[in-house]
Amino acid sequence: MSKKSIYEQLKHLFDPENIAVIGASNNKMKWGYIVPANILAGGYNGGLYPVNPHDEVILERKVYRSVKEVPAEIDLAVVTVPAPAVKGVIQECVEKGVKTCIVISGGFSETGEEGTKLEREVTEILRKNEMRLVGPNTMGVYSASCSLHALMPPVRPVAGKIGFAAQSGNLGTQMLSLGKALGVGFSRFVCIGNEADLKCADYIECFAEDPATEVILLYIEGIKDARHFIEVVSRTTPKKPVVVMKAGKTDAGAKAARSHSAALAADEAIFNGVLKQTGMIEADTTEEMLDIAKAFAATPLPKGNRVGVLTWGGGWGVVTADALAKHGLELVELPEDTLKRLDEILPPYWSRGNPVDLVGTLDLSKHFACLEIIANCPVVDAVITLGTMGATSSFQSFVLEGPAAEELSQIKPRVITSEFLQQLMATDEAYRNEVMRLMSETDKPIIAVSFPTSGAITPMLARQSEVVIYPSPERGAKTLAALYEYRRFLDRQKVGV
Amino acid sequence: MSKKSIYEQLKHLFDPENIAVIGASNNKMKWGYIVPANILAGGYNGGLYPVNPHDEVILERKVYRSVKEVPAEIDLAVVTVPAPAVKGVIQECVEKGVKTCIVISGGFSETGEEGTKLEREVTEILRKNEMRLVGPNTMGVYSASCSLHALMPPVRPVAGKIGFAAQSGNLGTQMLSLGKALGVGFSRFVCIGNEADLKCADYIECFAEDPATEVILLYIEGIKDARHFIEVVSRTTPKKPVVVMKAGKTDAGAKAARSHSAALAADEAIFNGVLKQTGMIEADTTEEMLDIAKAFAATPLPKGNRVGVLTWGGGWGVVTADALAKHGLELVELPEDTLKRLDEILPPYWSRGNPVDLVGTLDLSKHFACLEIIANCPVVDAVITLGTMGATSSFQSFVLEGPAAEELSQIKPRVITSEFLQQLMATDEAYRNEVMRLMSETDKPIIAVSFPTSGAITPMLARQSEVVIYPSPERGAKTLAALYEYRRFLDRQKVGV
Repeated sequence: MSKKSIYEQLKHLFDPENIAVIGASNNKMKWGYIVPANILAGGYNGGLYPVNPHDEVILERKVYRSVKEVPAEIDLAVVTVPAPAVKGVIQECVEKGVKTCIVISGGFSETGEEGTKLEREVTEILRKNEMRLVGPNTMGVYSASCSLHALMPPVRPVAGKIGFAAQSGNLGTQMLSLGKALGVGFSRFVCIGNEADLKCADYIECFAEDPATEVILLYIEGIKDARHFIEVVSRTTPKKPVVVMKAGKTDAGAKAARSHSAALAADEAIFNGVLKQTGMIEADTTEEMLDIAKAFAATPLPKGNRVGVLTWGGGWGVVTADALAKHGLELVELPEDTLKRLDEILPPYWSRGNPVDLVGTLDLSKHFACLEIIANCPVVDAVITLGTMGATSSFQSFVLEGPAAEELSQIKPRVITSEFLQQLMATDEAYRNEVMRLMSETDKPIIAVSFPTSGAITPMLARQSEVVIYPSPERGAKTLAALYEYRRFLDRQKVGV
Repeated sequence: MSKKSIYEQLKHLFDPENIAVIGASNNKMKWGYIVPANILAGGYNGGLYPVNPHDEVILERKVYRSVKEVPAEIDLAVVTVPAPAVKGVIQECVEKGVKTCIVISGGFSETGEEGTKLEREVTEILRKNEMRLVGPNTMGVYSASCSLHALMPPVRPVAGKIGFAAQSGNLGTQMLSLGKALGVGFSRFVCIGNEADLKCADYIECFAEDPATEVILLYIEGIKDARHFIEVVSRTTPKKPVVVMKAGKTDAGAKAARSHSAALAADEAIFNGVLKQTGMIEADTTEEMLDIAKAFAATPLPKGNRVGVLTWGGGWGVVTADALAKHGLELVELPEDTLKRLDEILPPYWSRGNPVDLVGTLDLSKHFACLEIIANCPVVDAVITLGTMGATSSFQSFVLEGPAAEELSQIKPRVITSEFLQQLMATDEAYRNEVMRLMSETDKPIIAVSFPTSGAITPMLARQSEVVIYPSPERGAKTLAALYEYRRFLDRQKVGV
């Protein structure tokens, strides 16, 4: 075993100075072409050395017959040769002194007995050296710090604070894509693959120490060394939140997981015990993975469960009240002096309660004033604002880009004036700044809910590394409950319970 | 009481030949301007008569001092005058013989005792005639058949088969907007308002008889005459599915509902009893409202709970297996002859099970062949297809429109060729046609799940009146469970249980 920490070992993986691609190809339908092309297109600035015994030039770079001939120290080898050839390649990597490798190739333990034997043989070779291996049967790795896109699909994630390890390449890379559309950023991503060498727990241990990672996100189907996993997670959660989606919890799901990743799925009851013991935060659905992770990355934690709600319309307030109650959050009664301050802003017939109903008020300064009063109210631990932030840009894009835009521009007199549009464009930016200022000043989370009334995700919605917006009150409330759950875990840790 | 059916009475509301706008205005910030402007912009072709005592011309139309002076029979009066003036206006409408009216104005029972008294007085006037009243305190009405947009917000819904009654204007009209973005169509929409005259049950009764409406969608906070409501719904559900979102089920939610709509919220247990008794299908969240309604409008009902799953990647298959199990659906074991037919298409190492994993196969003809085999398998009642239909257009838009597009076009050699892009564009249309053909031939629902990897909803995704696509397997599975629940209800009705 190496004496270096996992984090130090995986620096070679996430911040390589030189990469060799073994099995590089000029055939554009082959991963040996697509993966290095993704690396170059993604803006990686280190050395990239194609290796294959036949070609002279690939991707405008000199090709080497063996990794051992490459005239540089190699931090990372990306291996795309067919499974039977992997053993020899890894042997050469070890002899060359390569630090880490990603074995993209499938055909190992996921295919049956013979593949399992092959995988074991490959892992045996590693032990002779300090080389660490990602996969095999992996879609690869992303790292923001050096803009490394060693990935099969051409995903270009947003750089951010979330470290993400996934036991499914499709699911993982599609989360990165969704994150891109929403502006949710990642520091690192690794498709775990078959875990021949590096296990899920190793990536968690690395992310825990990694200064670039503030939130850890996991998609797990099964855990290979449960005791070690629990130990590592338990050490991590007091420092950084770990959000986990566990698939294969039902019999049907576990069966599907076995055929997919050959991982042993944990029983639901056992896994619930693990959650409780370790303080991991569970995402119940794939949508909740990003919902929750992005909030951990962007907002403060609530100090309690008392929520103030600002709403533009009554119905959404009712739905939010239900959602909060469902998740153990309190729609707190606002004290009289807070109501009095709101009286000065809202029309006389406002309901004088929580949710604070803006009763359709269009005046943005009134929105801001109400938001500030609620956020500063001492009995409020967190704020949900409904149909306000982001709503105007949705509306704008509906008007500007929707099929109605043409009709609207033809009718006389025009319903929508250009001043109105300009006003809308400025509104979202102002809202965003106001929410960021209030979160910073009050140290309370402000969760926005905006209804996706347009096909396009607007620029506002697509920058959720700084503020978070949910497409429904139910998802906003569930997320807030997750933040609060982690907060309570931290509080228990502090008092040593 | 009128001897005409509610449907016949509300023909004047949903298909008016002449509309009067009472309280019409030239002030663009007033509803008296915005609502008739929306009506005109929406393409309504009937007569529109502004009424107000001061102006000569509004929206390029002659203004009348009173509705009684309008030289035409009025089917629908849209009333935007302040609450205290409504009584006089309604009196004049009754004298004129107006058939229906929408009272946009607020300031009635939702504001307290005095407003309640005023509302009762207005309703008393109606009784002298056959005039029916929507609201007061309503955002208005949409009707596809005559392109009527008598609405406060400038929403331009897609025409379709869903009749929608909502006890919240904001929530209701934002659902219409979301429907527009997704291509989910509505036949009628009504914001129920205070239910001074027409109640939720009346709209259901109307939609039940309305040939343009095939699916009924409700957003309810409280029910005013529960016995009548139950009776009407019970008569309706054997003919048309009724999808309902019930807000105000928790104490906090009920309290918020009281302050919002003055409606008496039903206890959760009672409402669950109503659901069971009436065969309504519940949407648990606001997102599920459209999720479920659009499926009822686009796909056949499953005859049983046995599901075949086609997936492009393993991880999503595992998540789907879990979601199906959670909702009582069976990931059915495929018979040997079906597996053999799939053997002919898939690579030798495929998992020979359900989910049928395409193992990343790019060849579209293989997707179609697998989909056809699964859909035609006699033990399969419904199909979920993951990451296939819609995925290519998401990918395309990621490449064409995403921030990566520019980078990709600059790198050499190009990863993405233009032939590849053209291929992608054709793919979604082919997929759509194939799914429609298979649903028609097999009479089984095919539910697609495609992951929103791009900010833009693609043209493919934006036409969900014909095929349905969900952003997660969990939402697809939940929807399928709702379709099956309704199917079982119908089956019980048939055998008289």
